[in-house]
Amino acid sequence: MAGAGGDGETVRNKKVVLRRYVTGSLTVGDMEVITSAVRPRVPPGTPAPAVMVKNLYLSCDPWMRGRMTKHDDGDDVALATDFALGEAMVNYTVGKVVDSTHPGFAAGDLVWGMSGWEEYSLVTQPAETLHKINYPNLPLSYYTGVLGMTGLTAYAGLFEVGKAKSGDTVYVSAASGAVGQVVGRLAKIAGCYVVGSAGSDEKVALLKTRLGFDDAFNYKAEAGDLAGALRRRLPGGGGIDVYFDSVGGATLDAALLNMRLGGRVVVCGMISQYNLEEPEGVRNLVSVIAKRVRIEGFSVFDHFGAYARFEREMAGHLAEGKVAVVEDVVEGIDAAPGALVGMFSGRNTGKLSVAVAKE
Amino acid sequence: MAGAGGDGETVRNKKVVLRRYVTGSLTVGDMEVITSAVRPRVPPGTPAPAVMVKNLYLSCDPWMRGRMTKHDDGDDVALATDFALGEAMVNYTVGKVVDSTHPGFAAGDLVWGMSGWEEYSLVTQPAETLHKINYPNLPLSYYTGVLGMTGLTAYAGLFEVGKAKSGDTVYVSAASGAVGQVVGRLAKIAGCYVVGSAGSDEKVALLKTRLGFDDAFNYKAEAGDLAGALRRRLPGGGGIDVYFDSVGGATLDAALLNMRLGGRVVVCGMISQYNLEEPEGVRNLVSVIAKRVRIEGFSVFDHFGAYARFEREMAGHLAEGKVAVVEDVVEGIDAAPGALVGMFSGRNTGKLSVAVAKE
Repeated sequence: MAGAGGDGETVRNKKVVLRRYVTGSLTVGDMEVITSAVRPRVPPGTPAPAVMVKNLYLSCDPWMRGRMTKHDDGDDVALATDFALGEAMVNYTVGKVVDSTHPGFAAGDLVWGMSGWEEYSLVTQPAETLHKINYPNLPLSYYTGVLGMTGLTAYAGLFEVGKAKSGDTVYVSAASGAVGQVVGRLAKIAGCYVVGSAGSDEKVALLKTRLGFDDAFNYKAEAGDLAGALRRRLPGGGGIDVYFDSVGGATLDAALLNMRLGGRVVVCGMISQYNLEEPEGVRNLVSVIAKRVRIEGFSVFDHFGAYARFEREMAGHLAEGKVAVVEDVVEGIDAAPGALVGMFSGRNTGKLSVAVAKE
Repeated sequence: MAGAGGDGETVRNKKVVLRRYVTGSLTVGDMEVITSAVRPRVPPGTPAPAVMVKNLYLSCDPWMRGRMTKHDDGDDVALATDFALGEAMVNYTVGKVVDSTHPGFAAGDLVWGMSGWEEYSLVTQPAETLHKINYPNLPLSYYTGVLGMTGLTAYAGLFEVGKAKSGDTVYVSAASGAVGQVVGRLAKIAGCYVVGSAGSDEKVALLKTRLGFDDAFNYKAEAGDLAGALRRRLPGGGGIDVYFDSVGGATLDAALLNMRLGGRVVVCGMISQYNLEEPEGVRNLVSVIAKRVRIEGFSVFDHFGAYARFEREMAGHLAEGKVAVVEDVVEGIDAAPGALVGMFSGRNTGKLSVAVAKE
């Protein structure tokens, strides 16, 4: 067997661990990079078939924030269990199988899925948590983003929840972000008119040029009248058929005033609210009655069944050059805590990931 | 032809008119009862087939408030056009046809549908706006309520939008109100566990006894911790499958913290908000993501297609004594403005209507 470090050898295994549960804004000091060692093999005696993965890319995603706060046992609002203090944080990665006792995986396989924020991860239920990478000639980092959970989130939210169709007007907040840019491109490919908002003039320019949005605006510059800023950008004085919400708060309020009859608000995230101790109020919900608006929260975890179809379609779009990918790849696991903190203040443009190893 | 006042005679026609558009709380002085005269026949020269209706009951409904505020032309949040100042307000009534030039209606027919807050109304599109009363042996006032729009609202919201089914936990706010009590009964008949809230201990007692709710609470007495008050009343520590919302604001916030995975919030109304110049904020929307909650506004106007099925089912329930009806019938058209104002401060218990004439 070709364990990366040889059969008996141990290798360094840096891990990003959570030092303390977080209230309010996340800081770099809430995390720590610690160094341990690992023998890069599935340990003898591991009860069920497992794989040892060498992580190549770590995905940085907003939902990680929810797992960094301590929740009461009875509080099931969290998407998943809290991270354990002192252990590697858990999220999506791209990696290479370096050892396997599972019949479905072999050393050398490229995979993406749920493992640890560390250099090597033992994955004990690989069939449930890892996907083989079917398009290895595309950049592997895409599987943290446009071909991974980010892309599937955009696809499932826009089409399975939002029922977007040709001719619809789609509004996307956090539009230059990882999910937002994919939502915008998929909506354009489907024949929608797409308006985006983002937090700087540079991001707005990116939306209108490289990312191909029909129109876009800087929500910080328009904060005095967000609803009006949005309304002026809707074609024919019409409303929004699908609002893909990753922001919540005042942005959701502005969208609610502009929905078309029967419009859908797909709630993917509310990044404006996660770092607040007291959430903002959303004041315009009453408009859902007259407009028969549906607001629906969703989790990509319910939509794995669509992944194979999505991967095939998206790989096709990428091969045809229909989807421009804007990535922000940070080098080295030591930079991971700072990258994650920066994401919550909007420092990155496009899908943020950390390159841990080249192969 | 047997016009009520004879062929040539004119009769008194009192009308409740809106004197001025309303901001904030509705007052009796915003309306006026004026006296005019009418010849109770379809006037010669009326271009299309029409009917003259003698109104027996006027229905008082929360949605009327929205038509009493002046909306900008571009503001299509209103459910319908604004009432015209100085003309009879428009809403659902029960009446008797006293003259008809329409082949589908004859003098003597009992009907319910949209006409005016007046003693006699000329209805120019009767096939579109009036329904024949198929169960005239039940109290006619029921057609302003449990057998009319109120009942259809409850039925459509609970089943067509909320998808309530046997075993679900259903929470109903404004539960002793016209729609709320019907929602509760239909949910019980369907095999749901039903919790209600209302604004006085008397109403709570009514819910638990005559209206057959499984549990109920006084939201005013529990205002310090509405979410906890609700949680303590949910069976097995579980959540809410369907919240039928007629209130919005803090009540919606409390429900959002108690929704079950995949729960549905059916938004029928937000009576707590209509008289506010600035709506309250709803702070717990972020919970829709983890819980995959669907919040959907609806209007009964989209569900007329279900009426015949609903009327048959509900008449059956009533005949079997499965639905207790609590009504508040005010006598005389002169009392109509006061009755409507009282409804917005919770003065009535059960469906409020105004008896204008006995036959």
